[in-house]
Amino acid sequence: MAKAFSHINGNPMFYFPSRLNPNRPFPVLLPFNKPFRVTMSCNQSYWASVSQDIEAHLKQAIPIREPLTVFEPMHRLMFAAPRNAAPALCVAACELVGGHRNQALPTASAIHVVYAASFFHEHLPLTESSRPKSKVEHVYAPSMELQIGDAMIPFGLELLSQSDDPTQNNSDRILHVMVEITRAIGSRGMIHGQFYQVEPHESDNNESSHMEQIERVSEKYEGTMYGCAAACGAIIGGGSEEEIERMRKYGSYIGKIEGIVNRSGSMDKDLMRRMVGELRDLASNELRWFNKAKVEAMLNSQFGSID
Amino acid sequence: MAKAFSHINGNPMFYFPSRLNPNRPFPVLLPFNKPFRVTMSCNQSYWASVSQDIEAHLKQAIPIREPLTVFEPMHRLMFAAPRNAAPALCVAACELVGGHRNQALPTASAIHVVYAASFFHEHLPLTESSRPKSKVEHVYAPSMELQIGDAMIPFGLELLSQSDDPTQNNSDRILHVMVEITRAIGSRGMIHGQFYQVEPHESDNNESSHMEQIERVSEKYEGTMYGCAAACGAIIGGGSEEEIERMRKYGSYIGKIEGIVNRSGSMDKDLMRRMVGELRDLASNELRWFNKAKVEAMLNSQFGSID
Repeated sequence: MAKAFSHINGNPMFYFPSRLNPNRPFPVLLPFNKPFRVTMSCNQSYWASVSQDIEAHLKQAIPIREPLTVFEPMHRLMFAAPRNAAPALCVAACELVGGHRNQALPTASAIHVVYAASFFHEHLPLTESSRPKSKVEHVYAPSMELQIGDAMIPFGLELLSQSDDPTQNNSDRILHVMVEITRAIGSRGMIHGQFYQVEPHESDNNESSHMEQIERVSEKYEGTMYGCAAACGAIIGGGSEEEIERMRKYGSYIGKIEGIVNRSGSMDKDLMRRMVGELRDLASNELRWFNKAKVEAMLNSQFGSID
Repeated sequence: MAKAFSHINGNPMFYFPSRLNPNRPFPVLLPFNKPFRVTMSCNQSYWASVSQDIEAHLKQAIPIREPLTVFEPMHRLMFAAPRNAAPALCVAACELVGGHRNQALPTASAIHVVYAASFFHEHLPLTESSRPKSKVEHVYAPSMELQIGDAMIPFGLELLSQSDDPTQNNSDRILHVMVEITRAIGSRGMIHGQFYQVEPHESDNNESSHMEQIERVSEKYEGTMYGCAAACGAIIGGGSEEEIERMRKYGSYIGKIEGIVNRSGSMDKDLMRRMVGELRDLASNELRWFNKAKVEAMLNSQFGSID
């Protein structure tokens, strides 16, 4: 678990237990290239317990079952995929609006699973010389990894649908969350971010253009994923329209920060600080709208600084 | 539209307006290798009108919109994908259980879209020498086609979610259909069929083993897809549990026939006739459970024969 916390200017923000993924195709993504760490303390025990509960739920929800030829590799790859903070954000958002953690765990798990699908497809070996060579170790043949990724998306949604409980009359929330997740992974969200990555872009040597590129990929990819995760948590926890939209905005700023920081290895540090600082302020503004005591109980926030 | 009808021994069966796909990697799939045609007449105008309505709905439901970099290729590939009979079966099942055609069109369109995703991923050029070379013409770079396929699945589900109408109180049916579709395309359905295709199988030269291989791929791939389509039509049309399950079985027999016939080019014709005949009887048995007049109004069936 990385020690990257986020809190600045007295505005508490969720800790996001980001584990950097050393395998993304961007050379700037390697942890040792990371230009700075945001070091602040918050209630680590809260986030650790959320992460533990998500892992436990994943283990229980993703058994190896028949057909073994499909489930064994799917199981292996789902747990091999790097973790990010979106599932934990989902759970936190649920609890923040008054929901119970157990309500959010299937959604949080589904978010990890669809992210895992996206991760393995991004690293699939294709017959395309311009595609950056992936450093991810391939355990299975490409056609298997392609199909496992294809199987993960419906499996993630299946996890979610299993939490549909007629006695709780929660079908509308589950449907809402399914729509949110399918939109987020799709053509106006994460896939759009991935398109930005593969489409040819001019002036690669121009720093501001490179920064813009990083910014828009991060906004669409991590921004949409985290925004969706936070919104889904609020939906499943029974939040109001306003709470859902505030959580979505909050999550999308946090996701964008995550994306920018992970992709920014060789970038100008001042530009980076300014950009991340602005996003952090925007995110904090959204949190102000929520119950301060609740936010702080989760965060146990203290002042911190950027190294 | 192919002239393949299905009806035998006086048991009426739906016409399935199968358009053979000449591009599937199986060499036995080429239409000119098809060992026999099932030639029977039925109410072609019914099926033609269903197909027209589905095409019209697809055109209206899949506009080219922002972001154009994603939607233009997605639009192009969705319409370039071959058509199969599953969407029409969905509409027919809806009408058979007393639903209105318009209720089923978003589901039928979603089924085409997720099939298109599966089709393009199956033909993706991967760095794997053992994968059969696809004859599909690639308009876009492999990484684009991979991502477009990835975007199609959520887009198909989005089409479906847009038909959620609170005034009609149909959220539970939409959710049910989403779960059906995600299960069908996943690890225990179509993907499982595709795994059977890529996993190494011994005794390729052994005819009965080859036939078994074709049978299990067809049962899982087309069988699950068509069974899902028919069940979804019955769900969205307000059918009872029994009607839904009968339609699912009916669809899965029809789908399996479709798969076997398409893959059977060099197979023993007698074995094929026997196998298809048995499946057809099983399918007919399911239809007997429904209102005979309604079935016949759709089919206007007459006796026919196998060439």
